[in-house]
Amino acid sequence: MLIEIPNNKKARVVIIGGGFGGIQIAKMLQNKDIQVVIVDRNNYHTFQPLMYQVATSALEAESIAYPIRKIFNKSKNFFFRLGEVKFIDHQKKVIELENDTLEYDYLVIATGAKTNYYDNEGLTISAMPMKSILESLDLRTMLLQNFERALLINNERKKQGMLNVVIAGAGPTGVELAGALGELKRSVFPKDYPELDLSKMNIYLVQSGDRVLPMLSPKLSEKAKKYLEKLDVTVVLNTKVLDIFGDYVQTSADEDIIAKTLIWTAGVTGNPVNGLPAEVINRAGRILVDEFNQVKGLGDIFAIGDVACMETKEYPLGHPQIAQVAMQQGKLLGKNLLNKICKNKTYVPFKYKHKGSMATVGKNKALVEIGNLKIGGFVAWFIWMAVHLMSLIGFRNKVVTLFNWMKNYFNSDRGMRLIITHFDLQEEKRKRRKEFESRLEQT
Amino acid sequence: MLIEIPNNKKARVVIIGGGFGGIQIAKMLQNKDIQVVIVDRNNYHTFQPLMYQVATSALEAESIAYPIRKIFNKSKNFFFRLGEVKFIDHQKKVIELENDTLEYDYLVIATGAKTNYYDNEGLTISAMPMKSILESLDLRTMLLQNFERALLINNERKKQGMLNVVIAGAGPTGVELAGALGELKRSVFPKDYPELDLSKMNIYLVQSGDRVLPMLSPKLSEKAKKYLEKLDVTVVLNTKVLDIFGDYVQTSADEDIIAKTLIWTAGVTGNPVNGLPAEVINRAGRILVDEFNQVKGLGDIFAIGDVACMETKEYPLGHPQIAQVAMQQGKLLGKNLLNKICKNKTYVPFKYKHKGSMATVGKNKALVEIGNLKIGGFVAWFIWMAVHLMSLIGFRNKVVTLFNWMKNYFNSDRGMRLIITHFDLQEEKRKRRKEFESRLEQT
Repeated sequence: MLIEIPNNKKARVVIIGGGFGGIQIAKMLQNKDIQVVIVDRNNYHTFQPLMYQVATSALEAESIAYPIRKIFNKSKNFFFRLGEVKFIDHQKKVIELENDTLEYDYLVIATGAKTNYYDNEGLTISAMPMKSILESLDLRTMLLQNFERALLINNERKKQGMLNVVIAGAGPTGVELAGALGELKRSVFPKDYPELDLSKMNIYLVQSGDRVLPMLSPKLSEKAKKYLEKLDVTVVLNTKVLDIFGDYVQTSADEDIIAKTLIWTAGVTGNPVNGLPAEVINRAGRILVDEFNQVKGLGDIFAIGDVACMETKEYPLGHPQIAQVAMQQGKLLGKNLLNKICKNKTYVPFKYKHKGSMATVGKNKALVEIGNLKIGGFVAWFIWMAVHLMSLIGFRNKVVTLFNWMKNYFNSDRGMRLIITHFDLQEEKRKRRKEFESRLEQT
Repeated sequence: MLIEIPNNKKARVVIIGGGFGGIQIAKMLQNKDIQVVIVDRNNYHTFQPLMYQVATSALEAESIAYPIRKIFNKSKNFFFRLGEVKFIDHQKKVIELENDTLEYDYLVIATGAKTNYYDNEGLTISAMPMKSILESLDLRTMLLQNFERALLINNERKKQGMLNVVIAGAGPTGVELAGALGELKRSVFPKDYPELDLSKMNIYLVQSGDRVLPMLSPKLSEKAKKYLEKLDVTVVLNTKVLDIFGDYVQTSADEDIIAKTLIWTAGVTGNPVNGLPAEVINRAGRILVDEFNQVKGLGDIFAIGDVACMETKEYPLGHPQIAQVAMQQGKLLGKNLLNKICKNKTYVPFKYKHKGSMATVGKNKALVEIGNLKIGGFVAWFIWMAVHLMSLIGFRNKVVTLFNWMKNYFNSDRGMRLIITHFDLQEEKRKRRKEFESRLEQT
């Protein structure tokens, strides 16, 4: 069925995805003579940088999610539709949802990135990703369930498997997760599980490259590694995680690691929509765009952020897949569309301004690199907190997050250790893995 | 496997269920010469009176749930095991979980109540209950999804079905839900859904008896009805909800009601555990206990709260199934067990002290009945808020809830309108209903 949205504006801009990039475009077009429609499979915007805190029981999901409709409550030209886009028909200029179609004049693909398992089906089934609110809650459940189950087990090796955690990938997500787990091990789990010998809980951070946080300068990487090791995280460099099976994580190193939980933060790939010509999608799953974020060969379709790949001199493989790029591209594209549609002006090309990189490692410690400022430690941690707090959308989220952080800080506590997801995902994953293995055996 | 918890105390008291009653017993036995083990299928205590606020996007689940382990962090004699109790073997004095068994010296059944559909399988499949955190989140999802889907539909009757809500049962839960939905209709949905004609959203509160809130005096019931009607809730008395099918809710009245959502708050039944002799469980699913909450004929097994039925002169059918009873019974039983085990004293019989009843109906309005004080309106609403806020466990939950309430109050907003549950429960329910119908046709 055709989705009807009466339109007396000059044109309709449809944005697929309400992430950092999509929201920026819609903001630039607020109350202008253009109809804006965001289509997203979730009715909320996710603040991805703090997902690891949801997974480690420090924050509620509600603090890092914000209803998209609420952001644009005061924009009369803004519309939202909940749904997953299945296909772009660029000849008819419509997008197709499950049962409905929506016409566009201009289309922006802002669908972000998804977890990349590099076609390793075993990992796809058995590892835990953390790229959405639901996955973060699932991960929280899994971590807590493992500890509860360890109490029901007498077999020492199996118990060891329940307590150990392997994180693959030492980018910001992996490092921040490892730090948060280190804090849980040090301050929270001993109070909750006095019956368990927590010196036996091992947190492994496995990185294929030769340092953690490779987007920072080598000195800061070295500092981050030290901070992690102080939190009892075992940093394993120059090693690839190959698979997880039963109680073991297989790596490219000589010995397997005993662990039932493998968190996969070792790569992302673009998340394009079906219907685009094959030649505009590169091997990383990203959509090739020109300097105006126009999809090559399709004048009225744009792609921004993680899903887009703008090959420039400075970034021959495309810009880094981070929020800053998406936001800057969104902002410029919003302006460009406004100027084109309402004032008939030409597009201005995109130029990325890198503002800096940062990551935190447990309490009191962070790494910050802004231009020539390269610091680690307490001051960096303060900057990290301020930047993240200010970036959260909504007054409630800022206040509640600050309150939670203060409480967690002074009590060395994490209050959200609640198992509130529906399913026994571990059991489910085990089943799926068994099916996969028996399929393999048959062939 | 036998769950081993080394015990150098005088006895082990096992409590099934960490609700209002179970928590009280454990509190009375904190750091005494008795080992206490709570077994629950959730790792948190639920503050049920505010579940309706989770369902209507006013509060996060995290504000009304509290980790059970955290409550007893400082009790060295306290233990927790996550799991569902499948069977009580009172001869062997063990309880059986999925794969494990646990021995007890004294056993307390504090498993509460579950939704009662009075054996109506159609209702069981198709109605929405609200007796747990997960069900509250599911209900939130369903309410929001209906509005999102109404925007994709052109058929007016179907659209009407998406917007309308029927609540069966006008006890506190039903009334408070209806009031909260009235507030959503008045203040929140018009901002989120300017495209929908919200005058077409109807909220029906259907009650089999002749007044709402029958536990209050008739005058207050009358007031509550007026408050509800001011919030545009249609109160339907002397009418039973029979079934929901497709776009229609069937009632004992002449005409069906168009609505796709039926929330069922019209009854609860005890939630006993298998293994008890049939004669100790009454028709309401409650376990018959004597004045010491001892299960009849089983000296070392007790039942308290909603699952227990103590027939007294004043309450020939057992006490009302409310938190106050559970808490008072828990407190006394804790004392009794302590005196018996540690001081060899005899049990003191239970005597219920009714402290009062209250319910709120939207912003600024509540009904409170404490002894001879019977008031409705703003002051009552203030008392309602204070009592509920003080009853929440944990400093964080009190502060964040107060903050959310203030924000909701001054902005006429509900910030948690997030669809963060995994599944399309509506689709699932529709499928199950179809299967059920085709089974019926075959027989």
